[in-house]
Amino acid sequence: MTHPRGFPETEYSERLTNIQSRMAEHDLSALLLTTEPEVRYLTGFLTRFWESPTRPWFLVVPASGKPIAVIPEIGAHLMRQTWIDDIRTWVSPDYTDDGVSLLADTLAEVAPERGKIGVPSGPESHLRMPLQDWTTLRDRLPDRVFGDDAAILRSARMVKTKAEIAKIRWTCGIAEAAFARVNDIAGAGIPLSTVFRSFQSLLLDEGADWVPYLAGAAAPGGYGDVISPATNAPLEEGCVLMLDTGAVWDGYFCDFDRNFSIAAPSDDVQSAHARLIDATHAGFEAARPGATPAEVYAAMNLILTGGDTAVKGRLGHGLGMQLTEPPSLIPADHTPLVPGMVLTLEPVVETQTGIMVHEENIVVTEDGADWLTMPVGHAIPQVDP
Amino acid sequence: MTHPRGFPETEYSERLTNIQSRMAEHDLSALLLTTEPEVRYLTGFLTRFWESPTRPWFLVVPASGKPIAVIPEIGAHLMRQTWIDDIRTWVSPDYTDDGVSLLADTLAEVAPERGKIGVPSGPESHLRMPLQDWTTLRDRLPDRVFGDDAAILRSARMVKTKAEIAKIRWTCGIAEAAFARVNDIAGAGIPLSTVFRSFQSLLLDEGADWVPYLAGAAAPGGYGDVISPATNAPLEEGCVLMLDTGAVWDGYFCDFDRNFSIAAPSDDVQSAHARLIDATHAGFEAARPGATPAEVYAAMNLILTGGDTAVKGRLGHGLGMQLTEPPSLIPADHTPLVPGMVLTLEPVVETQTGIMVHEENIVVTEDGADWLTMPVGHAIPQVDP
Repeated sequence: MTHPRGFPETEYSERLTNIQSRMAEHDLSALLLTTEPEVRYLTGFLTRFWESPTRPWFLVVPASGKPIAVIPEIGAHLMRQTWIDDIRTWVSPDYTDDGVSLLADTLAEVAPERGKIGVPSGPESHLRMPLQDWTTLRDRLPDRVFGDDAAILRSARMVKTKAEIAKIRWTCGIAEAAFARVNDIAGAGIPLSTVFRSFQSLLLDEGADWVPYLAGAAAPGGYGDVISPATNAPLEEGCVLMLDTGAVWDGYFCDFDRNFSIAAPSDDVQSAHARLIDATHAGFEAARPGATPAEVYAAMNLILTGGDTAVKGRLGHGLGMQLTEPPSLIPADHTPLVPGMVLTLEPVVETQTGIMVHEENIVVTEDGADWLTMPVGHAIPQVDP
Repeated sequence: MTHPRGFPETEYSERLTNIQSRMAEHDLSALLLTTEPEVRYLTGFLTRFWESPTRPWFLVVPASGKPIAVIPEIGAHLMRQTWIDDIRTWVSPDYTDDGVSLLADTLAEVAPERGKIGVPSGPESHLRMPLQDWTTLRDRLPDRVFGDDAAILRSARMVKTKAEIAKIRWTCGIAEAAFARVNDIAGAGIPLSTVFRSFQSLLLDEGADWVPYLAGAAAPGGYGDVISPATNAPLEEGCVLMLDTGAVWDGYFCDFDRNFSIAAPSDDVQSAHARLIDATHAGFEAARPGATPAEVYAAMNLILTGGDTAVKGRLGHGLGMQLTEPPSLIPADHTPLVPGMVLTLEPVVETQTGIMVHEENIVVTEDGADWLTMPVGHAIPQVDP
């Protein structure tokens, strides 16, 4: 079974049209993009080479016409395979001018004097270039007005196309298949670090291109956190094993977890797991067009705490080209949900000895939501000791 | 066979002493660090959770005393397992104040009025926080002077400790063992994407914690670039298969590649491979204390081009907590090499139909250099068709 890679060119032209119409609303002459997902969103430039922090990469989006890639020469061959026509390169690293002049000239060409150049500057964004070069760039263009991008990238990327959703669903299916085989790799006496390695291999075996993210934990009756790397401590009977993966297929993530009890669970663990599942379903029911992340949070929180208190932190988030994206399921997020938003539902409960977290992935549809993962039942899956 | 994880606390206290003595030289009251390797370098905070771009993380290094972690609450449990005592948290994401007040208060406590706060700002650095928050932070502290960190982090991290070198050597050994098994996973008719998946599994099987980076290519007589993801095209007899991996063990990377000929190589490919090996050895001989990256580049370039022309781009780089680190083997890099610097030697040659790249990892010693990888011989390894 396979799934087509890449996108038709119309995917990118439609994304661009959407972005440029928002730029017009905000009187922006250009956007300057510097991070992997921002550049890929409008070009299709897909490479793991961003793992190297050495070289800056730039994409300039004009008010009309295709984006212009201003990139290190080492990326030209791959960029030429995308729909981008105007590719300007320099040999990087260059200690005296690492693309800054080329970028300044390009921006000057695209944005008129007093033209506004938008740079993603809000929550969950960062500028991927050295601060000194950022200062130099603005000094080189004193007649242009640098400011934020009015959250254009954030809001555009939050709503996925059908083709994007199909890819995320495919990635979720790969991870489902790997989770279905956890009984083959986990059990009492096996070090957690071995389980982590084996699970990543299962993901690859089931078709993941790579596994950028795996976290998890194993501890009796609940764990301490959900972001730790694996220790060499062996699993024990009565442990709750949690594996949380962000696998990638064709540049799109899944992000969900599964809990397992090593041998029979305690009543406390079983009841915590059932509550997590109920909270997930409450979130699913609440996630519909016009509702807000705050309302989805509230529906889940009601199950988790009875509503008297509020869970600290978020109970889910967006998902797509990155492991976590906007929006956030927190009381302060009032973004109206619209069809095409992909969300994780990620409830957390305290047990007698720690916490447990569950996570599923869904997509908002015209009349509610669809599961992208196969929702787990109340009973915590048991791994043979 | 195993290797001890983590570092003794003295590793971090010695790193800190080194950093703080450099801060004193530059009259810096504090450093503000925001990226994964910077934070981990002084704390040991190791998590794959940085894959999520949502939350900012801060480390404040005072002129004396231990660093202060200013981090999202979700990371507190893991940070408490490091040597850091002062851990200040907020519940993130917070749309009105995502740690900025807490960070400003901490910096105000540590840096006196008119005190200089250094932020890594030069080549290969970036600021991992939203630009809007960066502006707000400086507005909140008008009496402190924000500037660059005088490349303190860059120069300190460039020289590895014995314990760091041991970890990198261990990671290289894992990848060596995986490369030794390529004949089991590659051959004519097998799609390159399958080879990529299988090779990542081999790395995990040999002990890698994870595989942040894998690039490669396969094409008759040479390939087009070294950063592309795998296609589904099957390998063919006469292809040169290249796999370039940045695997990680306990937070430290290897970064090297191997070329393979599917069935017998052409004379052109064989001779290109031999030249790459000769260039690697020339680089190895040139890499000794007091020499410069420019000189190592020149020694390699002489073999690659005869010295009449200069290879565009770099012929190797630093390596450690990141896939690529300073210095760069380019004509402009005059950093004096000192014992403890870990380098990759990465020569490139053109073949009749593309390019070929080879890569080994070395460490500069008191009287020359040591191999961290097992250097390949002149003959390109052959994979059975």
